[in-house]
Amino acid sequence: MAIRFELVHIDGAARLGKLDTPHGSVDTPVFMPVGTQASVKGLTPRMLEEAGARIILGNTYHLTLRPGDALIAELGGLHRFMNWNGPILTDSGGFQVYSLAPTRKIDDHAAVFRSHIDGSLLELTPEKAVDIQENLGSDIAMCLDECPPADTASDYMRDAVRRTVHWAARCREAHRRPDQALFAIVQGGTNLALRAECARELVALDFPGYALGGFSVGETQVQMLEALRPTADLLPIYKPRYLMGVGRPEDILAAVSCGIDMFDCVLPTRNGRNASAFTADGPVRLRNARHKRDSSPLESGCPCYTCGHFSRAYLHHLFAADEMLGPTLLSLHNVSFYCRMMADARRAIQERRFAEFHSVCLARWGATL
Amino acid sequence: MAIRFELVHIDGAARLGKLDTPHGSVDTPVFMPVGTQASVKGLTPRMLEEAGARIILGNTYHLTLRPGDALIAELGGLHRFMNWNGPILTDSGGFQVYSLAPTRKIDDHAAVFRSHIDGSLLELTPEKAVDIQENLGSDIAMCLDECPPADTASDYMRDAVRRTVHWAARCREAHRRPDQALFAIVQGGTNLALRAECARELVALDFPGYALGGFSVGETQVQMLEALRPTADLLPIYKPRYLMGVGRPEDILAAVSCGIDMFDCVLPTRNGRNASAFTADGPVRLRNARHKRDSSPLESGCPCYTCGHFSRAYLHHLFAADEMLGPTLLSLHNVSFYCRMMADARRAIQERRFAEFHSVCLARWGATL
Repeated sequence: MAIRFELVHIDGAARLGKLDTPHGSVDTPVFMPVGTQASVKGLTPRMLEEAGARIILGNTYHLTLRPGDALIAELGGLHRFMNWNGPILTDSGGFQVYSLAPTRKIDDHAAVFRSHIDGSLLELTPEKAVDIQENLGSDIAMCLDECPPADTASDYMRDAVRRTVHWAARCREAHRRPDQALFAIVQGGTNLALRAECARELVALDFPGYALGGFSVGETQVQMLEALRPTADLLPIYKPRYLMGVGRPEDILAAVSCGIDMFDCVLPTRNGRNASAFTADGPVRLRNARHKRDSSPLESGCPCYTCGHFSRAYLHHLFAADEMLGPTLLSLHNVSFYCRMMADARRAIQERRFAEFHSVCLARWGATL
Repeated sequence: MAIRFELVHIDGAARLGKLDTPHGSVDTPVFMPVGTQASVKGLTPRMLEEAGARIILGNTYHLTLRPGDALIAELGGLHRFMNWNGPILTDSGGFQVYSLAPTRKIDDHAAVFRSHIDGSLLELTPEKAVDIQENLGSDIAMCLDECPPADTASDYMRDAVRRTVHWAARCREAHRRPDQALFAIVQGGTNLALRAECARELVALDFPGYALGGFSVGETQVQMLEALRPTADLLPIYKPRYLMGVGRPEDILAAVSCGIDMFDCVLPTRNGRNASAFTADGPVRLRNARHKRDSSPLESGCPCYTCGHFSRAYLHHLFAADEMLGPTLLSLHNVSFYCRMMADARRAIQERRFAEFHSVCLARWGATL
């Protein structure tokens, strides 16, 4: 087995776990910063580690287009290429085919799409998605899925779910690397019956871990939770559960309360580049003129390099002057905030007070939400 | 005295020195990375220190426009604002009035110019330039000078030199901070008689250090050295000599051989942002396709974070994928290269083999220049 997942503690539906991978152990629930193109934007691996990141994401779609998965394999794999020695999870490209490729055609055989980089025509089959991720050498690979928007008509959604299950079986068949775990992805949008059917069929195929896909694509938090809670309950208790692409801090804590173990999202780095910070007292927009003379740190008590060494006034200045150090320092803080929130959540689960922790967080963030 | 300069060793005209400042000691000859807007572009202070930087530059013109020197003073000065605890030298803005302001009018009283940021009309007098730098709290401040291009007609250049000397006297008169040294700037372009006259008059005013200005403004290295060597000889032996804005590695070593102690230049960071690296074997352009599969470090034997952790193939990928980590990692290497070159130069002077070191460097760089 490439990975081992141990369920350490349960508090309501929230779970404290330990995920062993070929590149080390990770305590769950965990947040995974996104390194789409073999780089978590603006941060060195050393900064990431200092910010508390223990496992990061890479992307099949982007990396096969550039620089190419064969090249990365030739250079010793993704860990070595980007100098990240902890675990890496790669997603399969199913989501990007929908969100990035300018045109696409999907049938049972494959997803055919145009590269958003050079317009060339590419075909992604389940077997090819596995092959790419084996070349990348991630610790956890994802099955190719079809990920239509949440508001897709039921007929098409039914077809997408059927295809996602069929592709998962083909991925499992094609998968070879003994040092890599392959997770399946449950789709079905906000249609609970479809979600349940998809989960049941994928569970029957016995994957070492399960992801819930299609949850970050345009639905409200209420809609998300309505579909998330019952779907999470359909997944095997003793296997890790990963909610893909979600989300805001409040979405993540809500999902932890539903029993989700793993998360990824571009928000900490994207917002960091846009001068927007996450703090224990809610979001802070550094471009706002009220920070111009503020000598206090971005978030008092935050142990990150940014908060330990710079004032809000300085960060405001960096963004006003268009200095690239601004996006770097704010991305560093935001990733640090997410990782610290997860560590606090784990402690709260351990001490059987997750519900209280959750509502205290919401109350504090709500103050300036 | 705010600073103390000790001449430790001489090898030909090249000098090994030690410059004590209120924020620590610096061995000379030294390279000062440029932090125009209170940030050396793309690098954290911690990265700068690891790269070997011991003293950095700030800029009067930029910082008085944004965020304002009064604000920086209110926040505890430039060191604290940007979290750089080593020495800082601030230039006076004379050069930027020429190079950046879209319109300007200069008379004996002041330089009046339009802000390149918001078009507002601003007046910079010698007294104001001193006042701003006292607000910034740099360890070394520069007198306001007039810095016309090297090919300016002699009549005007004569006027600029007269004004530069007059302004230096006014700066000296206005200067108050006991923990800040004020350096004068010798102008005169490539006109040796004017340079000599300017140096003589400024030396008579007895400043604690002298800079040579107007040397990076469009002349060739041969022209530069023709004016630099005799001008350097006119400066007091026991005071530090700073060649402003120069330059390429080969220019710096040539200037060290003329007896210059201090240098600044934007090249390491600007070239770093543009995928161009300095190495012991000459420049390397990381966008070049020949680096695509190259698993070797940018510069073998370089102890910097970039060379110790990433391949040329990865750096090539970062620039191809427009990832901001590329500019950061390459700027880090380039600053490290400059600082290491200066450390090697100091060792060579100490061991009385600077001329040999100089020609070995040129031969290696020449291979791919």
